[in-house]
Amino acid sequence: MERHFDEDLRLLKERLLRMGSIAEEMIQKAVKALYERRDELTSDVFDLENQVNQMHVEIDDRCLKLIALHQPMAVDLRLIAAAMKINTDLERVADQAVNVSQTCHYHLLKETPVPEVVLLTRMSEISQKMLRDSLDAFARQDVELAKGVLAQDEEEDQLKARALTQLIERLKKDPERSSQYVDLILLSRNMERIGDHATNIAEDVIFMVQGKDIRHHGGDFIKER
Amino acid sequence: MERHFDEDLRLLKERLLRMGSIAEEMIQKAVKALYERRDELTSDVFDLENQVNQMHVEIDDRCLKLIALHQPMAVDLRLIAAAMKINTDLERVADQAVNVSQTCHYHLLKETPVPEVVLLTRMSEISQKMLRDSLDAFARQDVELAKGVLAQDEEEDQLKARALTQLIERLKKDPERSSQYVDLILLSRNMERIGDHATNIAEDVIFMVQGKDIRHHGGDFIKER
Repeated sequence: MERHFDEDLRLLKERLLRMGSIAEEMIQKAVKALYERRDELTSDVFDLENQVNQMHVEIDDRCLKLIALHQPMAVDLRLIAAAMKINTDLERVADQAVNVSQTCHYHLLKETPVPEVVLLTRMSEISQKMLRDSLDAFARQDVELAKGVLAQDEEEDQLKARALTQLIERLKKDPERSSQYVDLILLSRNMERIGDHATNIAEDVIFMVQGKDIRHHGGDFIKER
Repeated sequence: MERHFDEDLRLLKERLLRMGSIAEEMIQKAVKALYERRDELTSDVFDLENQVNQMHVEIDDRCLKLIALHQPMAVDLRLIAAAMKINTDLERVADQAVNVSQTCHYHLLKETPVPEVVLLTRMSEISQKMLRDSLDAFARQDVELAKGVLAQDEEEDQLKARALTQLIERLKKDPERSSQYVDLILLSRNMERIGDHATNIAEDVIFMVQGKDIRHHGGDFIKER
């Protein structure tokens, strides 16, 4: 019985990390489609979403069966609870990659390009790094790496605010291209949300390892917009 | 032991519904602050967020203890798993109410009013109705009511697309007020996300009652932007 349980837990982690890799691949392709104006990459993202959706259902089912069959306690129960939450976050990361791809496919890649917004590039890099680090932290149960993700989230929030100011300035000067600039503002929100999900994953890893809930203890830091 | 368990489950549901009421109150106040230009209501929202954050941690803890102590099976386990997910969604609904309030407090209520705020009225009504219905569906284990929430989500997505088109038209004609229009676009996204969380809650209720995962079976409906 015990060996089955360990094997099932190992498999659960493996499936979750596989789902994470697909979500990462979706973001990479979505961002590449945007920067290299390669519309064919957006269909890859739409295809990969189906895989993620199937895994989402499968992993939840795996978690419930593990609890019902093995009645885990303490650290094992925390691992399964964390897996259920991370599963939800990864599915929503995939949704964000789909949103980015839709904005590209239906709008941005059909229109003349607007000059590069460097801040947005930086945001997409940070989001991807945060997701990578949060999944590595889960794989290695690495609390320090998870804490690093939380720090990157603050950098991303600042970038988001600066990107917004810059894009509103451009809107005022070039109202004819309002639609493109609004798309870029919405893309910056997609990037931010990917970072938020990575932050959730990092918090779940810390809880899983330490059994300590660190959420909502960062003071009442009010984020603007 | 059995009676304790039933009592603990009842208490879990009660706390979750209490958290849901606070999240609803936060949205009501955030929306009222916007429409009636009453900035004092935004501080109420910021205060209520602290309560929601505390309950978020408390309810997760309650769920894990219930699993560890009572080793529930089948429908009871599904209820607890649903409670953990709904807990996450409610906390994020509260985040959206905070975002709306911040946009009002730091931006919109400091500037001259734009008439286009009215485009968001219907969206905010639907979001609030969806949240109310999803929580009622949870309280009464009402699958039909939960399914009604999924239908409302489609209406909201259409409204969101129309609001975006209209607001981009405004932007082109009145670039000086770009900042206000962008704020309204971001507010429409906050409303949409509240509706998305209500949809998640409704799906969890259906799973809890029927033991059937209905997520990702609606065909590959591609939403634009």
